Amino acid sequence: MLQETLEQGQALTDSALERLLPLETQPPATIHQAMRHSIFAGGKRLRPVLCIEAARMVAGSLPHNVEDLGAALEMLHTYSLIHDDLPALDNDDLRRGRPTCHKVFGDAMAILAGDALQTRAYEVLARLDCPAEFRVRIIEEIAHATGTIDGMIGGQVVDLEAEHTAPTAAMLEYIHRAKTAALIAASLVSGALYAGAKDSEVEKLRAFGQSIGLAFQIVDDVLDVTQTSEQLGKTAGKDSAAQKITYPALFGIEESARKADALVSAAMAELNGFGAPAETLKDLARYLVERRK
Amino acid sequence: MLQETLEQGQALTDSALERLLPLETQPPATIHQAMRHSIFAGGKRLRPVLCIEAARMVAGSLPHNVEDLGAALEMLHTYSLIHDDLPALDNDDLRRGRPTCHKVFGDAMAILAGDALQTRAYEVLARLDCPAEFRVRIIEEIAHATGTIDGMIGGQVVDLEAEHTAPTAAMLEYIHRAKTAALIAASLVSGALYAGAKDSEVEKLRAFGQSIGLAFQIVDDVLDVTQTSEQLGKTAGKDSAAQKITYPALFGIEESARKADALVSAAMAELNGFGAPAETLKDLARYLVERRK
Repeated sequence: MLQETLEQGQALTDSALERLLPLETQPPATIHQAMRHSIFAGGKRLRPVLCIEAARMVAGSLPHNVEDLGAALEMLHTYSLIHDDLPALDNDDLRRGRPTCHKVFGDAMAILAGDALQTRAYEVLARLDCPAEFRVRIIEEIAHATGTIDGMIGGQVVDLEAEHTAPTAAMLEYIHRAKTAALIAASLVSGALYAGAKDSEVEKLRAFGQSIGLAFQIVDDVLDVTQTSEQLGKTAGKDSAAQKITYPALFGIEESARKADALVSAAMAELNGFGAPAETLKDLARYLVERRK
Repeated sequence: MLQETLEQGQALTDSALERLLPLETQPPATIHQAMRHSIFAGGKRLRPVLCIEAARMVAGSLPHNVEDLGAALEMLHTYSLIHDDLPALDNDDLRRGRPTCHKVFGDAMAILAGDALQTRAYEVLARLDCPAEFRVRIIEEIAHATGTIDGMIGGQVVDLEAEHTAPTAAMLEYIHRAKTAALIAASLVSGALYAGAKDSEVEKLRAFGQSIGLAFQIVDDVLDVTQTSEQLGKTAGKDSAAQKITYPALFGIEESARKADALVSAAMAELNGFGAPAETLKDLARYLVERRK
């Protein structure tokens, strides 16, 4: 059942991305090749899957064309990965098992490919197949979640500045909440908004997303310590090499896993009011802490 | 009269930017300092001024809060300057008379500051003080104009790839239309949309914008040859040093100036149907080809 949810969400998202991104032959071709190199690198499509399932739960069935919203979320996530991997930032050569964008296309094209994925995401969001009032709320939500204040860019800034400093639990939680959990929460919230959710439903999904987003990042930190590069499809042990502050460094592996479990339990409680239709999102939440890559 | 238009537009835009950008003390402070360093560096606010005057012409008076739209356009323009100035791209140390963002804050923070200005622009656009239907059209228009297909990023890609190649007039015109004219046209179009323009009015302003945008870039190329760095507030002679293809290199200074004049004449003819209220935009068009920096 979970496997089916993941595969359906991934297939819907991939076909939307295929349709919404310029072809590799479309001039200027290099940038479109660079964008597609990073987008079609075998990502889990976690944010689109969460978005689609939140929309399905709220609407009671799969809303028409919600995968375009999922595709825009994946473009934004991928833009952030391309820029984070640059030599000036995390300097990573490997991502999802493939050479990173700048390793193949050079730093200039990677910067522009990231920029272009962000730009294209907003063009897609402006054209979503839902009322204009919903679209502007979705855009506002996503832009805020990827911005500098408690959002993705803010988290990356604090993460960069925290290297080589003494980690505190508060700083670590801020980084993970801003850098990762905010966009995961926005994925759920935007799916709910697309489906016409009431404010009270939106806020429950936001709380659910913030908790599973933090749990997801804690598990990511743990996997970075316990898995090989081959298993992860990206450079393992990278965090400790870069003296990044992480949950296992601060709390140990066992205690980190316990924290992730507790967050997922709290998250699932947020969905109780939705009844049986919430089972899929609960399954996804469990999957996030039990995954191996 | 022209001076008054420019000063009023600049003052409106600057006060909107002041209000819409996080304070330098707002955590994480470094990124907000980097964003403000580049935004408040004495730019001409040309795109906001064109946007505001297009909106004023269509509405018959200054529409409420249109300067927030102008501020978002300036954020997008500034994000592109920050990224273009990076060592991986044009490697420029000086912009608007001040050290470029990466010279002060480092490459990582400059990349993120550019990203964040783009993100913040869309958050502002989603919240504009006009109907949601207008907002999504404005967002679509601006995202397309700054994207990879005939837009700002596409122009920058072709420009980068054209270095050290034999220039053709067609390639040069493509680069300037995509890299510069598209956002200038979108500034006018989005101002018109904000004011509730009819489609026929929008298309006339688009044609006007495309012509003055190309003329503006031709004049920029000429000034790069004829002015000193001190006069320009940015590194002069940069284009020929980088073996960039430019209008004066291809056509000479005199012929380039004639082309710019012809474009501005064609642009002004597009506005004849608007009558007397179009005089301000016509004055701005003349100013673009007569400016000295």
